[in-house]
Amino acid sequence: MQIEEIFEADKRLNKKKRTTPLLNSPFLDEIADRKIFIKAECLQHTGSFKFRGAYSAISSIPVERRKKGVIAYSSGNHAQGVAFAAKIHKIPATIIMPEDAPRIKIQNTKDLGAEVILYDRLSESREKIGQKISNERLLSLIPPYDHNDVIAGQGTVGLEIASQAKQIGIGHADVLVCCGGGGLTSGIAVALSNLMPNFVTRPVEPEGFDDVVRSLKIGERQINKKISGGLCDAIITPTPGELTFPLMKKYCGEGIVVTDEQVMKAIALAFTRLRIVVEPGGAVALAAALFHTNKCDNESVIAIVSGGNIDPGIFKKALDPA
Amino acid sequence: MQIEEIFEADKRLNKKKRTTPLLNSPFLDEIADRKIFIKAECLQHTGSFKFRGAYSAISSIPVERRKKGVIAYSSGNHAQGVAFAAKIHKIPATIIMPEDAPRIKIQNTKDLGAEVILYDRLSESREKIGQKISNERLLSLIPPYDHNDVIAGQGTVGLEIASQAKQIGIGHADVLVCCGGGGLTSGIAVALSNLMPNFVTRPVEPEGFDDVVRSLKIGERQINKKISGGLCDAIITPTPGELTFPLMKKYCGEGIVVTDEQVMKAIALAFTRLRIVVEPGGAVALAAALFHTNKCDNESVIAIVSGGNIDPGIFKKALDPA
Repeated sequence: MQIEEIFEADKRLNKKKRTTPLLNSPFLDEIADRKIFIKAECLQHTGSFKFRGAYSAISSIPVERRKKGVIAYSSGNHAQGVAFAAKIHKIPATIIMPEDAPRIKIQNTKDLGAEVILYDRLSESREKIGQKISNERLLSLIPPYDHNDVIAGQGTVGLEIASQAKQIGIGHADVLVCCGGGGLTSGIAVALSNLMPNFVTRPVEPEGFDDVVRSLKIGERQINKKISGGLCDAIITPTPGELTFPLMKKYCGEGIVVTDEQVMKAIALAFTRLRIVVEPGGAVALAAALFHTNKCDNESVIAIVSGGNIDPGIFKKALDPA
Repeated sequence: MQIEEIFEADKRLNKKKRTTPLLNSPFLDEIADRKIFIKAECLQHTGSFKFRGAYSAISSIPVERRKKGVIAYSSGNHAQGVAFAAKIHKIPATIIMPEDAPRIKIQNTKDLGAEVILYDRLSESREKIGQKISNERLLSLIPPYDHNDVIAGQGTVGLEIASQAKQIGIGHADVLVCCGGGGLTSGIAVALSNLMPNFVTRPVEPEGFDDVVRSLKIGERQINKKISGGLCDAIITPTPGELTFPLMKKYCGEGIVVTDEQVMKAIALAFTRLRIVVEPGGAVALAAALFHTNKCDNESVIAIVSGGNIDPGIFKKALDPA
């Protein structure tokens, strides 16, 4: 993966993606005792960064092949990103989703025009189901992270961060990224290691699902004991990606692990101080910026808020102590 | 008020204000049966457009006079805008707020370093209190809307809308603005009548507090029967401003009135579809865009979401049916 691939993805995404704002608040700076900036990808189309990778990958498929349609497996945000990117391309999308995915994500994916096929996370392999249907229908499979065009699309977040950081005069920073399979983290790390040599990209994961953080520490891909049941559904993956892990190993600093309680506090503070809606999996990096700055090297910290598709019940619970 | 004053305010606000994004969602378009775009001023510093006018006015005061400090009266958003703009200028701020203002707004204003003086909306005149203290302490009074530098600051929202609309190719549009005293509405109307001749700016108000809409219809300033107690606290004013009304009369189209129920629905839809936090007074224009498009002339509608400082209890209530 070279930065040129990210530049190419950025051209394809031109006028299709939103350039999301970099937000801040004196109240959050006070909690963190640093200058923290929040890259609000919850404001991206379909409510998460996943639209970037999905559009990048679909726009790379040769036209005749693309017309037959695409297929994806996802717990929800990649699903919506692929469904919407397919809709823009006017091609059919089939999405394989776990039965226990948040209802709002399943419903949104259907409402964006995709055909949704549900599976059981514990007893079935989404990869096998996806491969079978894609072979039968000649669909192009858009994997959630282990695909160069997907990683390059997510890497466009890094291009925007570099440009926005330069505008406000930040030359040194820790960049904290919500990490599932590592598509967003590795894409950003490739972009920033080229453009901002004094930035350190760090993956952030929830307690109990810290495969990437442990893998980086040990130097080899580790596997999570559990693969479902966590609060942060959007970023629960069994193990780092085959393509993404070597990139993270090469370009990332040490990772950070946060608790569910810290995630819920971060959601409430994003509501009060930033007026954005953040889902649990999208809040882990903000939680790290607020409550783990001792693990950061720089005075400035940039945290990616990666998604905002949250069930109202969980959101209300996050606001409860307020 | 000439557009040149808005251009001057824009220069003073350069690198101080946030350029807020123009958001959209296919789901909202479907409800409205139009293309609707949301100018998310809830993402402005301090959570509302008020920062623009406050900073514009404070930065216009001659330096020696400015050092003595500023004073403002406000139900909350102007208070926070003035407090933060004063903090940036490193000068003291005194804010006169109604006792029944949302607690979060009073607390935020204090936390931004301002001295807060509470008054009773029904028995006291905030204007008199403000005038007295500002005379005693030689403070510069920053009124919430009836001040050219304040109107010019709010008008910078109009400059951004013109630029963003051109980028996405919108040449004709209804622009719906949450309207209290008319500072934001008149500023935007002046900007757009100059820059976008095919845009119609329309004030939007909540039922029972529709002084501007009625005044425009009759051609003379009307007074609301009630001046407190509404859901949309941020935009409850007794009557249109002396400076703002002639501008709105000259440059605005007919206004729109929405119900509290429509406002609560708009807050819930902004949560689900845009992932932004909107307060009741900041949601009236979105409610009009969603539920009153029959009153709009154009296929494209741009709605300003003017603020996002909402008590968690009201926000949870808005999510209840979801």
